[in-house]
Amino acid sequence: MFAPLMNLVPVAVVGASGYSGQELIRILMRHPGVELVCVTSRQFAGQTIAEVYPRFQGHKFCNLQFTASDPAAIIATGAKVAFLALPHGLAHEYAKPLLEGGLRVIDLSADFRLKDTEVYKEFYKEEHPAPELMAQSVYGLPEVYRDQIRSANLIASPGCYPTSILLPLLPLVRQKLIDHRTIAVSSMSGVSGAGRKADIDYLFCECNESARAYGVPKHRHLSEVEQELTTAAGEPVVISFTPHLIPVNRGIVTTTYAQLAPGVSLADITKAFTEEYGQEPFVRLQGEKGSADIKNVAHTNFIDIAWRHDPRTGRVVLLSAEDNLVKGASGQAVQSFNLMCGWPEPVSL
Amino acid sequence: MFAPLMNLVPVAVVGASGYSGQELIRILMRHPGVELVCVTSRQFAGQTIAEVYPRFQGHKFCNLQFTASDPAAIIATGAKVAFLALPHGLAHEYAKPLLEGGLRVIDLSADFRLKDTEVYKEFYKEEHPAPELMAQSVYGLPEVYRDQIRSANLIASPGCYPTSILLPLLPLVRQKLIDHRTIAVSSMSGVSGAGRKADIDYLFCECNESARAYGVPKHRHLSEVEQELTTAAGEPVVISFTPHLIPVNRGIVTTTYAQLAPGVSLADITKAFTEEYGQEPFVRLQGEKGSADIKNVAHTNFIDIAWRHDPRTGRVVLLSAEDNLVKGASGQAVQSFNLMCGWPEPVSL
Amino acid sequence: MFAPLMNLVPVAVVGASGYSGQELIRILMRHPGVELVCVTSRQFAGQTIAEVYPRFQGHKFCNLQFTASDPAAIIATGAKVAFLALPHGLAHEYAKPLLEGGLRVIDLSADFRLKDTEVYKEFYKEEHPAPELMAQSVYGLPEVYRDQIRSANLIASPGCYPTSILLPLLPLVRQKLIDHRTIAVSSMSGVSGAGRKADIDYLFCECNESARAYGVPKHRHLSEVEQELTTAAGEPVVISFTPHLIPVNRGIVTTTYAQLAPGVSLADITKAFTEEYGQEPFVRLQGEKGSADIKNVAHTNFIDIAWRHDPRTGRVVLLSAEDNLVKGASGQAVQSFNLMCGWPEPVSL
Amino acid sequence: MFAPLMNLVPVAVVGASGYSGQELIRILMRHPGVELVCVTSRQFAGQTIAEVYPRFQGHKFCNLQFTASDPAAIIATGAKVAFLALPHGLAHEYAKPLLEGGLRVIDLSADFRLKDTEVYKEFYKEEHPAPELMAQSVYGLPEVYRDQIRSANLIASPGCYPTSILLPLLPLVRQKLIDHRTIAVSSMSGVSGAGRKADIDYLFCECNESARAYGVPKHRHLSEVEQELTTAAGEPVVISFTPHLIPVNRGIVTTTYAQLAPGVSLADITKAFTEEYGQEPFVRLQGEKGSADIKNVAHTNFIDIAWRHDPRTGRVVLLSAEDNLVKGASGQAVQSFNLMCGWPEPVSL
Repeated sequence: MFAPLMNLVPVAVVGASGYSGQELIRILMRHPGVELVCVTSRQFAGQTIAEVYPRFQGHKFCNLQFTASDPAAIIATGAKVAFLALPHGLAHEYAKPLLEGGLRVIDLSADFRLKDTEVYKEFYKEEHPAPELMAQSVYGLPEVYRDQIRSANLIASPGCYPTSILLPLLPLVRQKLIDHRTIAVSSMSGVSGAGRKADIDYLFCECNESARAYGVPKHRHLSEVEQELTTAAGEPVVISFTPHLIPVNRGIVTTTYAQLAPGVSLADITKAFTEEYGQEPFVRLQGEKGSADIKNVAHTNFIDIAWRHDPRTGRVVLLSAEDNLVKGASGQAVQSFNLMCGWPEPVSL
Repeated sequence: MFAPLMNLVPVAVVGASGYSGQELIRILMRHPGVELVCVTSRQFAGQTIAEVYPRFQGHKFCNLQFTASDPAAIIATGAKVAFLALPHGLAHEYAKPLLEGGLRVIDLSADFRLKDTEVYKEFYKEEHPAPELMAQSVYGLPEVYRDQIRSANLIASPGCYPTSILLPLLPLVRQKLIDHRTIAVSSMSGVSGAGRKADIDYLFCECNESARAYGVPKHRHLSEVEQELTTAAGEPVVISFTPHLIPVNRGIVTTTYAQLAPGVSLADITKAFTEEYGQEPFVRLQGEKGSADIKNVAHTNFIDIAWRHDPRTGRVVLLSAEDNLVKGASGQAVQSFNLMCGWPEPVSL
Repeated sequence: MFAPLMNLVPVAVVGASGYSGQELIRILMRHPGVELVCVTSRQFAGQTIAEVYPRFQGHKFCNLQFTASDPAAIIATGAKVAFLALPHGLAHEYAKPLLEGGLRVIDLSADFRLKDTEVYKEFYKEEHPAPELMAQSVYGLPEVYRDQIRSANLIASPGCYPTSILLPLLPLVRQKLIDHRTIAVSSMSGVSGAGRKADIDYLFCECNESARAYGVPKHRHLSEVEQELTTAAGEPVVISFTPHLIPVNRGIVTTTYAQLAPGVSLADITKAFTEEYGQEPFVRLQGEKGSADIKNVAHTNFIDIAWRHDPRTGRVVLLSAEDNLVKGASGQAVQSFNLMCGWPEPVSL
Repeated sequence: MFAPLMNLVPVAVVGASGYSGQELIRILMRHPGVELVCVTSRQFAGQTIAEVYPRFQGHKFCNLQFTASDPAAIIATGAKVAFLALPHGLAHEYAKPLLEGGLRVIDLSADFRLKDTEVYKEFYKEEHPAPELMAQSVYGLPEVYRDQIRSANLIASPGCYPTSILLPLLPLVRQKLIDHRTIAVSSMSGVSGAGRKADIDYLFCECNESARAYGVPKHRHLSEVEQELTTAAGEPVVISFTPHLIPVNRGIVTTTYAQLAPGVSLADITKAFTEEYGQEPFVRLQGEKGSADIKNVAHTNFIDIAWRHDPRTGRVVLLSAEDNLVKGASGQAVQSFNLMCGWPEPVSL
């Protein structure tokens, strides 16, 4: 779809053994402006991408070998941009030396998403290991922080649930169309959201033909959702949020209730969405009658948003659907990458 | 588990070609006090149960032949109790003559659940065809109407969503522990809830690897939920409810938010549940830390209920799980049947 | 379905933390002649059945506590029959002392299925640890060894694949209706067959939307299949067998090809099946046009068998379906148990 | 990945309402050399692609309107190539006038795959409606007919099962490494293979948690498989083939047994595959130890092939995996299209 660009950007993917690392590799392999120079994984060091992920055989870069995750070695590959797809709590060990080494860093973990060390401690149960980096990071939600992303050196790419919750809510909170004290959110996520780790809870037979709420009432992702809603509202926002595990590989559906502010009509809601997202390349507005279905967004970077007015209760109901591994993780990270590198936002997405 | 009873009750199942009809047959086949004398289905008339449902080969009554659904013929079989597992809007054509013929009727459709013809018209978009029967019917939720069920001649067995919503909410609404104006409910249902009909929307490839909200904001089941909550509250209750379709065969998970009434603590909630359901044979209280997972209730008549207090928002979060075809339909109907016939409530469940 | 029996048999389940242990508990809980006196599991020692498996809350015996797996302690419970649901290679550590302690033992592992220590060594890559017990054990396939099972003290309950392969093939091999040198078998199994262990290969996202052959060409179960076919043929039988993993929780479908012996007709095949299995309580013959579908046998102890003649190739095609956890494991073990205790074979199945 | 080509080819997709039509649209939307000028569907005439398939919103051509399927109108759009994604038996009504109108036609149905009208009649139970076109068509398997495809005007794109069966078998049959009289094939297919039609058999609840063989012993696809094997062998080949339905959306796994010819070794098999497919862009050889797993080929045009020697039986076991909608249908059709138009074979695949 795009002509090969003159100057390929050398890219490293750090911690590429999980589902979002795998999805990053998939997207970057077909990016016309990317030279994948480094993939790291303690577990898979010495093996090629094709050996670890047979599905990537025959693709560009599939013979690149995984190396151990050493910052100095990553810098030595000449990478200019590094994606960090590590478990929470490890990113700072890489972000710091890589930034000092002149790389731009896109972190997919939660480590740099919060701006308040107290909130971090409250939700993650430990001191933040690198508070100085928190200040410097940009929350990688292009629909909100597009300009800051372009020039950022450290991107904190949003969580999968937060993306699906924030994009429908932000316009309404910002324009004060809803009473934010009444927000209640239920999300349903595919099992890849739990990561690729050997855990009996996520065995096929434990998840298939099942569904359950978990992490009630204080899932960690609440902290970044409330931070961004607070910024949008100009006052503290506290909400209810319940995640559910459902038996699909990928995808998140989110349903949100909120009381409309006095005098607000369905037309006001629709107008707000159209104004804020009418030109967004990856937000598809499904309107007052449309639906938000995982199958329509799976394997894409789109988020679908629909909404309803319930005159019986005076509430608005917001429906959204995204692929948790794409718009909810790796696709959104590449969207930031494209902004940082000056490419059209949809390249390879 | 039970000694064969002396006097078998002759039973008819009318409209046995859908998923709840099939589940009824499964449960009744192993009921020690039932003689299945009649199964009807226009579509399958002339075929045996074993021919239509190969899974039932080798079971008791599997050679019983389906007949066309004629009330006079049903009466002629000597049936004393008839289960109606028909699509909505048809039940009155059978209920009336069967009742007049001296049978007791357990209807699994929505036709006799509402007590107000106006509400029926609002939600079902047509005049109720037999308002005189509405008054006479008993809502077949044993946890609420056990005594009335025992002596009823016409049971309106509750819907699958309503069962999963009402059982967690009723004690709290009745005891005024929550502000009912703040109730917001999200449910996730398996695909069998949509029935066994040839419809592209419910093909495997349209449901698998997908999930979506539907019927927003005014699903028909809202009407019976609000009717029962209104009775419990002693004043009109209007709530928000969003059903979702998820890719499992059977099961419903429901998550409910509500603001606690002033001064109400988590201990009050727990006490209310324990008092009201401590002796219930099919309500399993999972407590303040437990979970509600479809896999724990699938193929059983149990409903699991757990709850959380969220001090940050002042809300209670209610979690429930049931099998939509058992406690949400056929199992609950047989629970009423057992009450009506004087057998221990759990027989064959 | 059955009157409570006078003398309950005290039963132990050793190693009850996997899927077949769980299924055993489910079946034994509703067995009118069983008193469950002991369940063991190193991992869960000290917890009750209801705590480990929330699905069993509210059932008989659900408050029984798991104990560590010590033979002396098991004997001390007074158990008269012990089911062993242990990983391969461990059963002899229990079977020996329990037999000496006077218990009858039903082993669900592969440890006592083979009669030839050389074959054991070839397929299991180690010396058999208790060859003296091999001689004493009875292969727990009631359709073949019903009489021996009745009086046996040590049952080697067949594997899931072998059951699905042997039952269709044995009559044809025994009656020499097919050329056994041409047998080729493909089986498809649900993921529970892999056991309940934390292994990335069996995560939901690794199995869902996938399918693959594995263990080609020499899966361990081949050894017992060939042993039993050899006995039936009266001469050495060697076959091809490929298992496949498919994304269902439970169930095995097996499709088998074999060349008909000269002069054999479809009618001969049908006659052989009817003669041998016409009175079997758990073999359902689906005939020359029927099908074998997991959904018809799931959660039951039935095996469905259908067959076709292909005149173009001169082959017979055998189709079978069973639930790998019931007829393929725990249900079949209880079938043997019923024979051993003198109860009707289908009790609680 | 490719620079936009100077001259876009105007393309029509006839009968685009099924799963392979949908997949064709998906692939063609991102093809840099394609101008989609016409999509037809009686059912959806008047609606845009985005309206019928919400997943395609925001993609190139998504506002193109479906028209009724009239050959003259298709020609009038200026299309130079037409893909026919129609049910079997209808293709000739379009192929004939479109060819006469100067279009090149790629037919995804079975209508022009067979060369022998008698075989067609035997397997499809009716006279072939356009025998003159049978002679003119090229079987669109690029690995075999690459040169003929380049200059063909009428492509009969292979069936999904045949592709997965033929690619592993052809080299061995052609080089006489196996005894073709002993070939026995079992395939497992995702449910999309049954098409997008309202049929109770393919409802979610009928397919999920199930699996079964069907179409035994004479599935229609056998005819084209045997035709191509016969050509490769230089003598008539007749084989056994059993398809199975498994609960995945997409993908086929095929396992094939055949007796090795005298003196043939595993090394000979490996050599044959390497020679014939070493340079093929979409055949990935997984070798003597590799596996063939749907998840590695889903959403791609690759077919994975692995093989084993079983010295105990003297057989080779061939394992293959493909996406039935891509390499098994629409991807392979676009592969032919690329060859016909002179583009690199992998463009947009």
